Amino acid sequence: MRGRLAVVGLGPGDVRWLTPEAEAAVAGADALFGYGPYLDRAPVREGQSRHPSDNRQEGQRACAALERAAAGKNVALVCGGDPGVFAMAATVCEQIDSGPAVWRALDVEIVPGITAMLAVAARVGAPLGHDFCALSLSDNLKPWSVIERRLDAAAQAGFVIALYNPISKARQWQLAAAFDRLRHYLPATTPIVFGRAVGRADEKIAVMTLQAADPSGADMASLVIVGTAETRLVSRPGQAPLVYTPRSATA
Amino acid sequence: MRGRLAVVGLGPGDVRWLTPEAEAAVAGADALFGYGPYLDRAPVREGQSRHPSDNRQEGQRACAALERAAAGKNVALVCGGDPGVFAMAATVCEQIDSGPAVWRALDVEIVPGITAMLAVAARVGAPLGHDFCALSLSDNLKPWSVIERRLDAAAQAGFVIALYNPISKARQWQLAAAFDRLRHYLPATTPIVFGRAVGRADEKIAVMTLQAADPSGADMASLVIVGTAETRLVSRPGQAPLVYTPRSATA
Repeated sequence: MRGRLAVVGLGPGDVRWLTPEAEAAVAGADALFGYGPYLDRAPVREGQSRHPSDNRQEGQRACAALERAAAGKNVALVCGGDPGVFAMAATVCEQIDSGPAVWRALDVEIVPGITAMLAVAARVGAPLGHDFCALSLSDNLKPWSVIERRLDAAAQAGFVIALYNPISKARQWQLAAAFDRLRHYLPATTPIVFGRAVGRADEKIAVMTLQAADPSGADMASLVIVGTAETRLVSRPGQAPLVYTPRSATA
Repeated sequence: MRGRLAVVGLGPGDVRWLTPEAEAAVAGADALFGYGPYLDRAPVREGQSRHPSDNRQEGQRACAALERAAAGKNVALVCGGDPGVFAMAATVCEQIDSGPAVWRALDVEIVPGITAMLAVAARVGAPLGHDFCALSLSDNLKPWSVIERRLDAAAQAGFVIALYNPISKARQWQLAAAFDRLRHYLPATTPIVFGRAVGRADEKIAVMTLQAADPSGADMASLVIVGTAETRLVSRPGQAPLVYTPRSATA
């Protein structure tokens, strides 16, 4: 039998965001691989082996899943959000690119999911309403100078910016540095959306201005959206304000 | 009864990408609004009114849905893809911002969906694997000079670029102009992914180089992903190549 590897996006925490395609891919697999907390979201099925791994072992996790698929199994490698956005799809492709020839013969499928920036944006309105970018603040895989260049370019050109991996135990100063940098280009009143654990029981959404943005409001489970000069707030009686970026731009 | 408006993302064409939350929002509504072809994807339910509209009447469509919600109804306004990405969520917020005070008291919910770039990326591997941006090539709502500035900034800073609305009946030259512009910054061999009608029966995915990219391969149902100098192809025996952008960057 020809081995198969599905790299499956579970979406953010809420099971109502799990697509039928992703659910079927997980249910039909002989073996499940993934970061422990994501794997815990898949229901246990008899006869299905489960291989949780640590958050940082991405290359090893991809190789282990590919090896199992190459043994003729139907394997699912699960990710939170979308597998193609700062997650395992690129890692799997990279391992296939540099791995044994037999991995190129596998049936590989990427199953898309709702990525965090879409879920956080939906909670507050439409902050990604016009052109936007997604930027990882992690300097584990690229130099900080590249991140600085991309922050400058995005802010100067008027992109809304979704910041993935804003902070971690080992990376404490990057988000503050990013805000400082963005203050050179964006008005002090630019709305910033902090979305933490979106779709989970401990979800927390906060909206502040760039001037007042406090990096300590973010953690490893957070996504931060930085608006543009055109992003607006609509205050509402008894409800949180809507945050949106109009689709039109004038200059 | 307090009126309610859900702006619902149906995802791209494939029903296996429709989330349970979106399905429930559509099923539970008293009235459905939306562009005709999207509305046709919602199953007919007795007692539910349906209000299809033309593609271009976005402001009117948002107002009609808000008026119905303000009359105390449970209304769903459906969009393809994600409502927050070049779709109706920003339009609805804009109408609330400038509309009657009663609209600010409505219960407004945005229901996220899989947006086209995630689905197209998944079909070929992981082309959005590192930092990326989403840019609409439509100059209906912003001047072409803004689009040029954003193309320049994104390409120079090394973002993968997902081009929404690359072409339409009334906008025939923009995609060719964008490719010409990007050729100043990106290698001739940069991979370009054309995704047409992803998830539908007439889906068509094509991968070419920037040098050979033919704008006539795109139409109104297309999304185009432009890689970076780091985007790679992995050739595979008997299968289409994988396209991916490594998560790491060196400069």
